[in-house]
Amino acid sequence: MALIVKKFGGTSVGSTEKIMNVAKRIIDEKKPGDQIVMVVSAMGDTTDDLIELAKGINSNPYQYTREMDMLLTTGEQVSIALLTMAFKSLGQKAISLTGPMVGMRTNSVHTKGKIVDIKPSRVRKELEKGKIVVVAGFQGADEKGDPVTLGRGGSDTSAVALAGALKADACEIYTDVDGVYSADPRLVPDARRMKEITYDEMLEMARLGAGVMQPRSVEMGMYFNIPIHVRSTFTNKPGTMIREAYTMEEKDFLIRGVAHDSNVAKVAVLGVPNDPGVAHAIFSALSDRNIAVDMIVQSIRNIEKNVTDMVFTIAQDDLAEAKQIVDGVADKLHAVAVLIEEDVAKVSIVGAGMLGNPGIATRMFGALADAQVNIDAISTSEISISCLIKGSQLKEAANAIHKEFFPEK
Amino acid sequence: MALIVKKFGGTSVGSTEKIMNVAKRIIDEKKPGDQIVMVVSAMGDTTDDLIELAKGINSNPYQYTREMDMLLTTGEQVSIALLTMAFKSLGQKAISLTGPMVGMRTNSVHTKGKIVDIKPSRVRKELEKGKIVVVAGFQGADEKGDPVTLGRGGSDTSAVALAGALKADACEIYTDVDGVYSADPRLVPDARRMKEITYDEMLEMARLGAGVMQPRSVEMGMYFNIPIHVRSTFTNKPGTMIREAYTMEEKDFLIRGVAHDSNVAKVAVLGVPNDPGVAHAIFSALSDRNIAVDMIVQSIRNIEKNVTDMVFTIAQDDLAEAKQIVDGVADKLHAVAVLIEEDVAKVSIVGAGMLGNPGIATRMFGALADAQVNIDAISTSEISISCLIKGSQLKEAANAIHKEFFPEK
Repeated sequence: MALIVKKFGGTSVGSTEKIMNVAKRIIDEKKPGDQIVMVVSAMGDTTDDLIELAKGINSNPYQYTREMDMLLTTGEQVSIALLTMAFKSLGQKAISLTGPMVGMRTNSVHTKGKIVDIKPSRVRKELEKGKIVVVAGFQGADEKGDPVTLGRGGSDTSAVALAGALKADACEIYTDVDGVYSADPRLVPDARRMKEITYDEMLEMARLGAGVMQPRSVEMGMYFNIPIHVRSTFTNKPGTMIREAYTMEEKDFLIRGVAHDSNVAKVAVLGVPNDPGVAHAIFSALSDRNIAVDMIVQSIRNIEKNVTDMVFTIAQDDLAEAKQIVDGVADKLHAVAVLIEEDVAKVSIVGAGMLGNPGIATRMFGALADAQVNIDAISTSEISISCLIKGSQLKEAANAIHKEFFPEK
Repeated sequence: MALIVKKFGGTSVGSTEKIMNVAKRIIDEKKPGDQIVMVVSAMGDTTDDLIELAKGINSNPYQYTREMDMLLTTGEQVSIALLTMAFKSLGQKAISLTGPMVGMRTNSVHTKGKIVDIKPSRVRKELEKGKIVVVAGFQGADEKGDPVTLGRGGSDTSAVALAGALKADACEIYTDVDGVYSADPRLVPDARRMKEITYDEMLEMARLGAGVMQPRSVEMGMYFNIPIHVRSTFTNKPGTMIREAYTMEEKDFLIRGVAHDSNVAKVAVLGVPNDPGVAHAIFSALSDRNIAVDMIVQSIRNIEKNVTDMVFTIAQDDLAEAKQIVDGVADKLHAVAVLIEEDVAKVSIVGAGMLGNPGIATRMFGALADAQVNIDAISTSEISISCLIKGSQLKEAANAIHKEFFPEK
C-alpha cells in the first residue's frame, strides 16, 4: 500500500480520448489499497486559447495579473472535472478538487505565485473514502481567497509540494519524454537517459535550462525529500528517479549532463557611473517586478571618468517589461545607452563529480574552441559551469561539449 | 448615489467585442458615487461547449452532478475575468469575484442548487474602494466549499439575491427583449410590453413558462422586496418594472398576460391500484431526484377492479430520467402501462384581476373552443388558469386567448 501523487501535463490530457486513456492506465496500474492523487494541468492548448481570448479585450492582458489568474485557473478546473468523470465512468470512485480546495495557500504575486503553505486535510479525507483525488495543478489561493497561478512549471510544483504535505511515498511526473537525458535529445542526438540524478544536479540542470523539470519543483522535492520519478505518459518503462543520492553504478560520470537555455536575452547598460548603489538601482528595480537576472558582468569602460558597463542576462519572456524598467533606471543614472541582444544562448555542464576535478572547465572551453564557438560570458557554481554564446551556435556547442564528456561507448 | 446590481446574460457577453460594449455602456451610464455590481453569465455557447466536451467522456455526463458543476462554473469565471479586464482597460477600477467568493452559500444539490445564505462582505469592501464588482452568476459553494450551480435561470437568481443581501436600490436584468410582454411576441405578434407587473403576477407568468424571468429570481425579489427592472441590452429605453404593487394607470387589464410552456411532457401510468399511497409512491420517487411534477390528473379506469390512471406533466428535459424512475415504480405497482406523450404544451392566463371575476375562465375556454383546440387537462391557481393542449396547436391557442383579453386598441 502506497500513497502516490501522479502528475499529468497538458498534452497528456489534451483531448477527452487522452483523458480516458489516462484514467484507464491509472486504474490498470493501481494496486489494491494504493492511494492515488492525480495532479493535472489544463488540456493541451486551453491556456493559449484563454490568453488569446483575453487579447480580444486588451493586447497586453498580463498587466491585469489578478484577472489573468481568474481566467487561467479555469483551464485546470475543466481538466479535473473531465478526468474525474472518466474515472467514475470506469467505475472508480473519484473526486475533483481545485487548488484552493486542497488548501494550497500562496502569496499574492498573481501569475507568478509561490506556495506558502498546504493544508491537505480534504485530500486525506477523500483518500480515506477510497477515492482517487484529482487536483488542479498550477493554482492555489492567497489569504483573501483569490485564485493565484504558480507560473511556469507550476503544475509540477503543485504535485511535488502536495506529495510532500501528504508525506507521499513518491511523486510521479508523467511527461512526453521518458526521463532526464544527459542533454536535450532534440539538440544532441547522442544524449542518453539517466536512471538516477540527485536533487542538486537536477536543480542545477533545470536552473540552467533543461526543460524536463522546473527548478521550483525539484527544490520542493529536496525540501520534502520526496523521490520524484520522471517518466513517460506513453510507456510503462521506468524513467529517471530524482532523489537525494544515487546508487553506485551511476557514479562514474564526471558530469551528469549538458543543459542549455535559448530563452535568454542580454541587456547591456553602457556608461553608468561606477558608484556604490548603481547595481542595486538596476537590479532592485527588476526584482521588484519579479524579473530574475541571471549572469551579470560588470566591466570598466573608462577608469578615469569612473564609468562602467553593466551587462546581464534575463529570460527573453521578460524582455519587453525589463526593457521598460531598465530604460527608466538608465535615464536616471545618465547612462550612455541600453543595448539588447537576443541572439544569445547559455550552454552549461552540471555534475557533482566536477568538485575537485579542476580539469573539467578546461575541457569544456577546449571543446567550444574546437567548435569555433566564442564565449561571451562565463558563470560557475559548485556543480556547474555555464557559457553565454551566440544563439545560432547553440547546437554545435552543445554537441561538442556532450561528445567531450559522454564519448560514444 | 445608488447601489445597483446589473445582470447581463450569456448573449450580452457572447464575444470580447460585446463584453467591451457592455463595459463602455456601464461606464457611460454610471453616475458619480454610484456603486455598481455586475452579475454575468457564461459567454454565449460556452456552457453548451462544456457539456459537449463532457459528452466526449460519457454520453450522460449529468449523472456526475458534482463534476458537472466543477466543469460548468468555469464558464462564468471566464466572463467575469474578461469583463473586469474590459473595465480596467477603460480606466475603471474593477474586480472579479466568483460565486463562492461573494459568500453565495448553497445547499449541496449539484446542478440544481438553492441559495441558503449570502454574506457579501467582500463585495461591500470592494465597492467601498470605488471598484465595480463583477460577480459570476449561476454559482455558489456549499458548506464543504464545493462549487454548486443554481440550475436554470440561476444567474438572475444570483443577481436578485445579491441585490437583496446588499440592500441594493434596484436590480436590473439586461436581456435580449426590452421587457415583459403580455405574451411571447415570437408566438403572439400582437403582444404588448407592460410597464409594470407585480411579483405575484410575474411569478405566475414565469412559473407557467414566460421565459423572460425564472420564478426563483422573482421569488427572491419578492422576499427581499427589491424592484427588478427587466430591460434591453441593446437600448437605453426603460423596460418592465417588477415590484410589489403597480401604479393606477396599469390597473385596467383583467389579466396581465398569456404564458405558454412547450417544455412539457405528459406521463400516464395506466391501471394502478386505487389505493392510499400510490400517488405518494410515484411522486416521492420523482421528487427524491428533484424532478418537479406539474399538472396531475387522476381518473378512475375501472371502479370495480379499483384501478385508476395517474396522468401528470413534467419538464421535457427531465423525461429520460423520469421515465426510468416511473417505469421502476410502475413495475412494483403492477401498472398496466406507462405512456409518454411529448406533443403537448401548456397555455395559461395570469392576472390578479381575475380574482372575483368568475367569467374569465369561461372566456378562455370559449376562445380555445372557437379555435378548435381541445383541452387535455386544466389547472388553476388564485391568479392563473392553465390548459394542457396539443403542442402543435400552441400558436393558434395563444393567439386566440390573447385576442380575447387584449383586443386591438
